[in-house]
Amino acid sequence: MRVAILGVGLIGGSLALAARERLGAQVTGYDDSPEALERALQRGALDCARSTVSAAVAEAEAVFVAVPVGGVSELVGEALSAAPADCVVTDVGSTKREVVAAHDDPRFVGGHPLAGAENAGVEHARADLFDAATWYLTPSAATSGMLYERLHRLLHGIGARPTAIDADTHDRILAAVSHLPHVLANVLVSQAAATLEDDSHPPARLPAPGPSFRDATRVAGAPSVIWTDIYLSNRDALTAEIDGAIERLQAVRAALTSADGPTITDWNERAASDRRRLLEAQLGGGDLHELRASVPNRPGVVAQIALELGRAGVNINDMALYPASDMTEGVVAMWIAGEAATDRAQELIAGLGFPVARP
Amino acid sequence: MRVAILGVGLIGGSLALAARERLGAQVTGYDDSPEALERALQRGALDCARSTVSAAVAEAEAVFVAVPVGGVSELVGEALSAAPADCVVTDVGSTKREVVAAHDDPRFVGGHPLAGAENAGVEHARADLFDAATWYLTPSAATSGMLYERLHRLLHGIGARPTAIDADTHDRILAAVSHLPHVLANVLVSQAAATLEDDSHPPARLPAPGPSFRDATRVAGAPSVIWTDIYLSNRDALTAEIDGAIERLQAVRAALTSADGPTITDWNERAASDRRRLLEAQLGGGDLHELRASVPNRPGVVAQIALELGRAGVNINDMALYPASDMTEGVVAMWIAGEAATDRAQELIAGLGFPVARP
Repeated sequence: MRVAILGVGLIGGSLALAARERLGAQVTGYDDSPEALERALQRGALDCARSTVSAAVAEAEAVFVAVPVGGVSELVGEALSAAPADCVVTDVGSTKREVVAAHDDPRFVGGHPLAGAENAGVEHARADLFDAATWYLTPSAATSGMLYERLHRLLHGIGARPTAIDADTHDRILAAVSHLPHVLANVLVSQAAATLEDDSHPPARLPAPGPSFRDATRVAGAPSVIWTDIYLSNRDALTAEIDGAIERLQAVRAALTSADGPTITDWNERAASDRRRLLEAQLGGGDLHELRASVPNRPGVVAQIALELGRAGVNINDMALYPASDMTEGVVAMWIAGEAATDRAQELIAGLGFPVARP
Repeated sequence: MRVAILGVGLIGGSLALAARERLGAQVTGYDDSPEALERALQRGALDCARSTVSAAVAEAEAVFVAVPVGGVSELVGEALSAAPADCVVTDVGSTKREVVAAHDDPRFVGGHPLAGAENAGVEHARADLFDAATWYLTPSAATSGMLYERLHRLLHGIGARPTAIDADTHDRILAAVSHLPHVLANVLVSQAAATLEDDSHPPARLPAPGPSFRDATRVAGAPSVIWTDIYLSNRDALTAEIDGAIERLQAVRAALTSADGPTITDWNERAASDRRRLLEAQLGGGDLHELRASVPNRPGVVAQIALELGRAGVNINDMALYPASDMTEGVVAMWIAGEAATDRAQELIAGLGFPVARP
C-alpha cells in the first residue's frame, strides 16, 4: 500500500507512523514547512519526503490531507488533480460540509478521526493515537464503493473505528459534543479570571485543585491555528448550539431568581438522565458476525449501506468488497459486533433492496 | 482531642476516619438516619454513636456539621446550644454567607473542604480524602483566636490545607469555579442530548470517547440532594456568573455570525492566557519558614491575620498560639511556604500593627 500524507503534524505524523508500522505501507510526505517535513523524516514517520503535492501523490493509493480546516479544501483539490484515477483521497478536518460540497469526485471521502493530544507537531506523533478511536467518514452518492472499502480497511488496520455519517449530521453532532464544549471552556476560564481578578475586590487565588473547574476547562484556549478555522467553518451549527445553551442558561437563571427548588431539582435530574443515556449509547459490542450483501457495482452503493447502518448506530468493524469478474456487481462482506446489531444490519440492508445473508 | 461529627456521609465519615487514624481523636457521631450511623460504626469511623445532637456534642472540643447545605444552619445552631463553652463548631457546606451571617458566636467558624468523590455515603469514606485539599475557613470578627487555631491545626493534622477567606469572597469564587461549571455541564449534556436525539433527524450516537465532551460533563447531574441546596443558597452570586457567561456567549456568537476570524482568534488567545494565569496562580510553595507575631488576646485578631494573608494568596501551612500567662496577649506562630511569601506575610502582619519577627 502506497500512502501519501499531506501535512505532517500530530495527526498526519501519527497516521504515517501507524501506516508504516501496522500496515507495512510505503509512506510519502509533503508539508509546506520544509522543517516539519525534515522532522517527520527524522522521526521515522516517512519513507520519503516530496516538495510538491503532485510529486507526493503521483503514485499513491491513498492520500490523507492533514492540515488545519481552513486549508483542507484547496489541498484536497490539488491532490485530486494530481492523484491517480484509482486513488482514494480523504482528509482529517473537524468539519465536513464545506469540503464535501466542494469535491464531488468518486475518489474523495471526507474523514475526521476523534483523536488528538495536548501537544501539536510530529514530535508528539504516536502510532497508537487512533487505537479504538471513532473515525468518521462522510461518503456521498458519488463515492466509489471500492475506494471507500479501501479506506475503511486501511483505517481499521491502523486501529481506528471507521463510522459512516452524512456530513450534515457530522457537523451538527460535532457542534454539540466538541465545538460547544470548547466554547464553554473558554467562557468558563475567562469568566473565572474576571471574577477572581475583579478590581472591586482583593484579587483571589484559584483554589488548588478545583476539580470540576480543571476538568471543565482542560480544552480552553486550544490552539487558535486549528480552532479558529473549526469555529468559522461550522459557524451556523455552532451558533445554533450556542443559542440552545443560552436558552437553557436563561431557564435555570429564572428558576434561581425565583428560588424555585423543585424546578432546579427537575432540571438537574434531567441532566443526570441525559448524561446516563448518552454514555449508555456509547456502549455495545460483542462477538463479530459476518454479513454478505450483493450489490450493483456503481458509485454510492457502499456509501449508502455504510450511512444507513451508521444512522442506526450499527458499527461496521471491518469490511471487504469482492467484485464479480465482469465488474457489474459484487459482494460486500461486513463484520459487525453483537448478535442484535447484526440482525438489525441485515434488516436495514434488506430494506435498501439488496440481497443479504449471514454466511 | 474529642471530635463530634454531625452527619456521617462521605465527608463526615472521611473526616471521622482521618481524625481517628491521624490524630488519635475520640470521635462521636450523630446522624438523623440510624442506618447511616450504624454503617459508620461498622466502617470503623466512629468510637461511639449518639442518637441526639446534644449527647453527641456534650463533651466535644470540635464539632463538624457535615450535612447538605440546606440543613447546615439549623444544625449549627443546635450544636452551638449544646456544645461546651470552649468547643469550636464548624461546618463543611459549599456556600458560606448564610451560615456565617446566622451564627455570630465566637465558637463558630464556617468551613468548606474542596474535596469530594463520585460516590456519596460513608461506604466510600477514606481517611486520605482531604490530603492536600484546600479547606476554606471563614472566620469573622467574632471568632475566638484560640478556637480558630485549634481548628486550623486539626485540619492541618488530617492532611488538609486550611485557608482563611471571607464568606462573601468564598461564595463569589465558588460560584465561578464550581457552581457555574456544574451548571454548564448540565447545560452541555442536555443540549447534546437534544441535538443527538432531535426528531427531525435520525437519532445519532454519541461518538465513542468524545474526550472534550466527557471531561466537560463529568459533573453533570451531580446529586440533587446536595446540589439543589448549593445552587439555591448561592443563587445571587451564581446568577451573576450565569449572566457573565451569557454575555460572553453572545459576544462569540456575534463574531461567528459575521465570520470575524481575528476576533475569534483574539477571544481564544485570551482564554488561553486566562487559563495559564489561573493555573500558575495555583502553584507556589517552597521551604517552610516560621513567623511569630505578638497579638492582643481578643476575638477576631487571629481571624484578621489569617484573612489578610489569605487575601494576598499567602497560605499558612501550620499555626500555633501561645497565650501569655495573664491571657492578655499572646504569640501566634505561623509556618509559611517560600521565602518570598514569608516576607510578604511579615509585611502584611506588620501593616496590621502587630509586632512580627522571624525567630
